[in-house]
Amino acid sequence: MRDDLVLCDVAEQVAVVTMNRPQALNALSDGLLAALTGTLSALGTREDVKAVVIRGAGKAFCAGHDLKEMQAGRGAPDKGAAYFADLFTRCGTLMQLIPTLPQPVIAQVHGIATAAGCQLVASCDMAVAAEDTRFGVNGVNIGLFCSTPMVALTRNLPRKQALEMLTTGEFITAPRALDLGLINRIAPPEDLEAATLTLAQTVAAKLGAAVRIGKRAFYDQITLPLDQAYAHTGAVMVENMLLRDTDEGITAFIEKRKPDWA
Amino acid sequence: MRDDLVLCDVAEQVAVVTMNRPQALNALSDGLLAALTGTLSALGTREDVKAVVIRGAGKAFCAGHDLKEMQAGRGAPDKGAAYFADLFTRCGTLMQLIPTLPQPVIAQVHGIATAAGCQLVASCDMAVAAEDTRFGVNGVNIGLFCSTPMVALTRNLPRKQALEMLTTGEFITAPRALDLGLINRIAPPEDLEAATLTLAQTVAAKLGAAVRIGKRAFYDQITLPLDQAYAHTGAVMVENMLLRDTDEGITAFIEKRKPDWA
Amino acid sequence: MRDDLVLCDVAEQVAVVTMNRPQALNALSDGLLAALTGTLSALGTREDVKAVVIRGAGKAFCAGHDLKEMQAGRGAPDKGAAYFADLFTRCGTLMQLIPTLPQPVIAQVHGIATAAGCQLVASCDMAVAAEDTRFGVNGVNIGLFCSTPMVALTRNLPRKQALEMLTTGEFITAPRALDLGLINRIAPPEDLEAATLTLAQTVAAKLGAAVRIGKRAFYDQITLPLDQAYAHTGAVMVENMLLRDTDEGITAFIEKRKPDWA
Repeated sequence: MRDDLVLCDVAEQVAVVTMNRPQALNALSDGLLAALTGTLSALGTREDVKAVVIRGAGKAFCAGHDLKEMQAGRGAPDKGAAYFADLFTRCGTLMQLIPTLPQPVIAQVHGIATAAGCQLVASCDMAVAAEDTRFGVNGVNIGLFCSTPMVALTRNLPRKQALEMLTTGEFITAPRALDLGLINRIAPPEDLEAATLTLAQTVAAKLGAAVRIGKRAFYDQITLPLDQAYAHTGAVMVENMLLRDTDEGITAFIEKRKPDWA
Repeated sequence: MRDDLVLCDVAEQVAVVTMNRPQALNALSDGLLAALTGTLSALGTREDVKAVVIRGAGKAFCAGHDLKEMQAGRGAPDKGAAYFADLFTRCGTLMQLIPTLPQPVIAQVHGIATAAGCQLVASCDMAVAAEDTRFGVNGVNIGLFCSTPMVALTRNLPRKQALEMLTTGEFITAPRALDLGLINRIAPPEDLEAATLTLAQTVAAKLGAAVRIGKRAFYDQITLPLDQAYAHTGAVMVENMLLRDTDEGITAFIEKRKPDWA
Repeated sequence: MRDDLVLCDVAEQVAVVTMNRPQALNALSDGLLAALTGTLSALGTREDVKAVVIRGAGKAFCAGHDLKEMQAGRGAPDKGAAYFADLFTRCGTLMQLIPTLPQPVIAQVHGIATAAGCQLVASCDMAVAAEDTRFGVNGVNIGLFCSTPMVALTRNLPRKQALEMLTTGEFITAPRALDLGLINRIAPPEDLEAATLTLAQTVAAKLGAAVRIGKRAFYDQITLPLDQAYAHTGAVMVENMLLRDTDEGITAFIEKRKPDWA
């Protein structure tokens, strides 16, 4: 089974999902897109998984779409129009699935994250990168502006910096990505896995129901007008307060002891 | 009167509002919420007040909601549901009052600003912090995700950094808060009051009517589509231009003299 | 013709547009506003222009509106109300024209960029500044809050930092503007022109059709809900993929050769 396009290992309530097309720098072929979408969807239903890490096998996190597969699509009578439309729909479905998953999803990034690979980093809830990682939305260099990746990118970065990356095709370093808000933390390459697991386990140690409620509310409120955002999250806070384990968590805090969470 | 939940001193057109529950790290009890809301509302009607500072007495700015009082609410037949709903509504009213006040409101932050205390910082128009202040939205540590604080937080910080704070419950330092956009300035603890007053007095020295017009327009336009934002602020500029004191201010500038503002 | 209010030179597919009222620090008089709007509109129709640079002649980039001209408008029976309304409409038209131009527009900034001059920097797609440039939205100092400039400013900067600039009238340095997202790059004054041209030529070397498609999609999607943004940009990617030159660009990349772009 180690030849699967996506590997998934669960340990200590953290699922580690590995994109496994190292020979293609984990380019998002139709097969890998489907496998990754399926794996993440399945993890979304598992109560025993409290955080998800996405990483890439081999030398890179992800180099974007599979260009050879895309070019092969041009053979159809419509020159690929229907295939491309379907491909970008499927890719958009994956990218939009991540913020709707109940568990926080963390990208563990190394090597390069380019085009749809950079979009995947931006679409994750959080990201940790090796300090020598390079990020780019460089489709413009081959005549294909990264229009779908920029949806995720512009919801992470300031406008001028996003547009510079998109129109120049130039790469940025991990420290620059950290400054710009694309990633949360950097680590030396040899410590990347440990640093990512530390973050994942920190999140996994929280009360799962509270994290689920909160993550959903995070994206629900972020684009609402202020009054609607407060009305919505006020109701969410009440729901959270009425959980038995939240009662116990607050009581334990007041009594200066550890909570007894089932 | 020095035992009041909120103290308010006005000097040189700057109101300094002090949350005064130092023994509870200025936790936002029902009483403190009401007093703070009432004090700020009253200041909003005072033409002689041109900037407002909010600070906390004792060791901390504000540690969030009053957890003991919240837990006591669980004794009701509905297990507190109605009380919690009302509490978060009242807290949201306070947080939404600040951007609607005519005067700029500046948080003077020291010690800790956690949960609803961090929300209060984020809700203020500007913030100055002692360089050893720690900020957190750490409710997740006790099973209560900071869903209402995140409304204010996500309107200040980039997404991934906000979600990291919310899901890990970890604190950030004042320099980090400065980098992320949560605060405007930092100062050594012994200079915090002076640094905050300097900012407040700088703002208070401007033409009050212009600042009022501008602050209101700031929040009115920030979420509008570009064309509507320009249509709205264009009309605001005309209103501002037609003020007698603005005529005088511009004339004085052209004539290289101080304006004669009443 | 070197006495024109706006100069325009096209070389190597880059148009350099110079605001040419150096004696008035390129203040945006009615004449300069009209000339700049007309020049940019005309460039928007030129297929041979693939990037646009806006710069200022003399000691400064742009010092904002022409205050003497504005004050002269007060002589009308309505005290200038209609003139001011028209002026801010014309200015807003210029600022909104820039993101709709097919080519990326880069501000080359030196000296000062204040009020509507700072708005012009914020309205450009990208900006490069001399490291000793100072930026401000300082109208508040003369009683005229920079309400229209803040539309552009708040779409570049975090909220608290924007409001601080607006209410204090204080200037920020170029390195600070870089940190805040107002500009993309800084350069020593003597290298500013070369640094800006390097960025412009980098963009101009890309496939023009892809950049046009992408820039338009950038602003179209940025305020949409996530699902609509993906639906829109997915269609844009299909349009881009079906360009003959994009087919060639991708094929050339796979074959490790330079694309044969007409």
